[in-house]
Amino acid sequence: EEGAFRQIRYTLNKTLRPSEVAHLIEKSPPKERRLLWSLIHKDIEADVLQELGDDVKSEILSKMNTSEVLAISEALETDDLADMMQQLPETVMHELLRSMDHQNRERLEKILSYPEDTAGGLMNTDTITIRPDITIEAALRYLRRHAELPDMTDSLFVVSRKDTYIGSLPLTRMLVSDPSSTVREMMVTDKPPIPADMEDTQVAKLFEQEDLVSAPVVDEEGQLLGRITIDDVVDVIREDADHSLMSMAGLDEDEDTFAPIMKTTRRRAVWLGINLITAFLASAVIGLFEETIGKVVALAVLMPIVASMGGIAGSQVLTLMIRGQALGHVERSNAGWLLNREMVVGALNGILWALVVAVIAIIWFQDLTIGIIIACAIIINLFAAALAGTMLPIVLKAWGIDPALAGSVLLTTITDVVGFFAFLGLATFFYS
Amino acid sequence: EEGAFRQIRYTLNKTLRPSEVAHLIEKSPPKERRLLWSLIHKDIEADVLQELGDDVKSEILSKMNTSEVLAISEALETDDLADMMQQLPETVMHELLRSMDHQNRERLEKILSYPEDTAGGLMNTDTITIRPDITIEAALRYLRRHAELPDMTDSLFVVSRKDTYIGSLPLTRMLVSDPSSTVREMMVTDKPPIPADMEDTQVAKLFEQEDLVSAPVVDEEGQLLGRITIDDVVDVIREDADHSLMSMAGLDEDEDTFAPIMKTTRRRAVWLGINLITAFLASAVIGLFEETIGKVVALAVLMPIVASMGGIAGSQVLTLMIRGQALGHVERSNAGWLLNREMVVGALNGILWALVVAVIAIIWFQDLTIGIIIACAIIINLFAAALAGTMLPIVLKAWGIDPALAGSVLLTTITDVVGFFAFLGLATFFYS
Repeated sequence: EEGAFRQIRYTLNKTLRPSEVAHLIEKSPPKERRLLWSLIHKDIEADVLQELGDDVKSEILSKMNTSEVLAISEALETDDLADMMQQLPETVMHELLRSMDHQNRERLEKILSYPEDTAGGLMNTDTITIRPDITIEAALRYLRRHAELPDMTDSLFVVSRKDTYIGSLPLTRMLVSDPSSTVREMMVTDKPPIPADMEDTQVAKLFEQEDLVSAPVVDEEGQLLGRITIDDVVDVIREDADHSLMSMAGLDEDEDTFAPIMKTTRRRAVWLGINLITAFLASAVIGLFEETIGKVVALAVLMPIVASMGGIAGSQVLTLMIRGQALGHVERSNAGWLLNREMVVGALNGILWALVVAVIAIIWFQDLTIGIIIACAIIINLFAAALAGTMLPIVLKAWGIDPALAGSVLLTTITDVVGFFAFLGLATFFYS
Repeated sequence: EEGAFRQIRYTLNKTLRPSEVAHLIEKSPPKERRLLWSLIHKDIEADVLQELGDDVKSEILSKMNTSEVLAISEALETDDLADMMQQLPETVMHELLRSMDHQNRERLEKILSYPEDTAGGLMNTDTITIRPDITIEAALRYLRRHAELPDMTDSLFVVSRKDTYIGSLPLTRMLVSDPSSTVREMMVTDKPPIPADMEDTQVAKLFEQEDLVSAPVVDEEGQLLGRITIDDVVDVIREDADHSLMSMAGLDEDEDTFAPIMKTTRRRAVWLGINLITAFLASAVIGLFEETIGKVVALAVLMPIVASMGGIAGSQVLTLMIRGQALGHVERSNAGWLLNREMVVGALNGILWALVVAVIAIIWFQDLTIGIIIACAIIINLFAAALAGTMLPIVLKAWGIDPALAGSVLLTTITDVVGFFAFLGLATFFYS
């Protein structure tokens, strides 16, 4: 066993990169996770930690004492440190701030003063700045005095004496420039800097549209605060895209695949409880028609079909709308077109599948009436599904509620209630 | 009206960037789209086109004649051109290949020989290569002979006389090196090049883990073929993340938010048809117990609750597993742990909500038996949901079927059938 541990320890510390160790930890159940963490060297702990997902990271941090946290914090980049701080208990956070030197504390407090999901919270302070009036040759000499440049440095930022952002000098441009020309002549100024309070999803869109590698961040006065790099933006894109998927199932996008039993049970219980209210609402609607069902039991057999068709059709529309909102395609101005398209699509598919279901129902129960009733109910419910699927995301967003989280529950409530009410209501009318 | 058009034309061609024009086109319904496209200048058509989503791009391409396609192709980068080629009719594609000069055709055919979803299909051929034995100073002089360097050039690739990849020289490293040292001394060799047949999702993981901006692509003999840049990788990440969300609703991740009515109706009809089979299966199960329902109509009122709780619990597990697979966390080796966790969570939540539902049902229908029956049925169905939610993605993936696409339909089938069967079966036993 000793030998096996030594082997694992060697692999973790010598063969794998920190990102690979982090991946290994993330895909291990809790017990192995703690074992793996205990086997890695102090020197790579910080590197591994910052590659971990939020849920896993805070689990590991919560098990450390203050001095361990302090040791790790020294090896982190400022933006990662700021992220980590937000997951620490208040007391540890203050101790950590006290322990830092003046310059680092100031930098960190600057980042911490912006919410985590803004450009300010995303930025790092490792910018390389130059003045506009020096020559390219002087700039090159200045760079050569550095032992190394920060990762992902693709541009130098040109600032005034008062640190006001003026422009960027891409390294690729610097390398093909005449050495005697000045920075001012060669810098680019057509890409405006990012304001520190811009939302992180907006920053991601900008990076995607402009194919950026790094971008300067400025405050309201135009002073250079730091820079955002594509690696952090990729995390935003990944989380943002995961958000819709996970929220629609009532899960958190940071949710750890291997979260412990009690944590998982608690989170899931809430969602089941909310959905139970929906289910009881549907039951209550069915309860209104108990008498009719007692007379025609075939109704009980067929009624889930009406609700299910509405739910499926509606969730297709809802998903398309939610993705459209995330991509910035769906706005009030084109909501009318979308609603119109969905109503027509709902009508066409409603008629098609209403006919199919009607024929099967008539043959199954040897009853023409039930065929007519279910056909009408399906068409009505697909209309309701198109309407709810299109409008819910728009209305919820306008009210500041996340459509991905609340949309699917509300949609199912609507398609269940409308479906059961239309089907059983029509039946009560026809069979009495 | 003339004036309004002139205004729009000016905005499209002078004020907005190509990526912004593309975004504007994507968020417009078909008719406005065609109008917008007709208003943009020939010179920016190619730039706009390559920023568009696949669905929109092929719609616009399908309306062009061969000479228009040829004109646009000249302005595209090789990897974008290769992407476009795959959406053209066979005849136009051959014409296009014939019209190109030898060097460009060869480059393009190299990319086209790899599937679109591999490193080879993703790469571009605009690499800057140098030899290992020259000095940094000579390399800098060589660079200065270029009018400009390709976008996203963060490294030069070091190759042998036979074009075999040897290492990379990051610009950031080059700029801090002693000019008299050689490229061989300063190049980095610890990051292996990407084989051309690596899957694009694998490439994306590598870029994310290693925080890369660009990476060299090589063939089996180690010859440098081209490079992949982060902007194309971001597209892969975005599409990959969208894939799970869209597939779970039976939608294609390339689906255009503003697809025309007939296209939408057809795509949706298929999914509704598949789900209808599921719904009829559930109905058939209910049909087995028609007699019992005739005796106790309350069963019809409560049965959707059992099915719905199972469906919700199951889709939470399924979503977590599908995301876990996409992140590379879920494998056979840890499936046992996950199944165990989900069964325990299912049992705990099953007991909790079974009690709640039982109490409500007993009060509602003044019937103790129905409370016991529904409690048992809910516990059984949450077990089935946990089992199906965990195992379906693993089994489907092993069979080469996309769990995101087939998982949700199969899961609902299972939770509906098990839910109705358990509830009505138990009822038949207790009430007869």
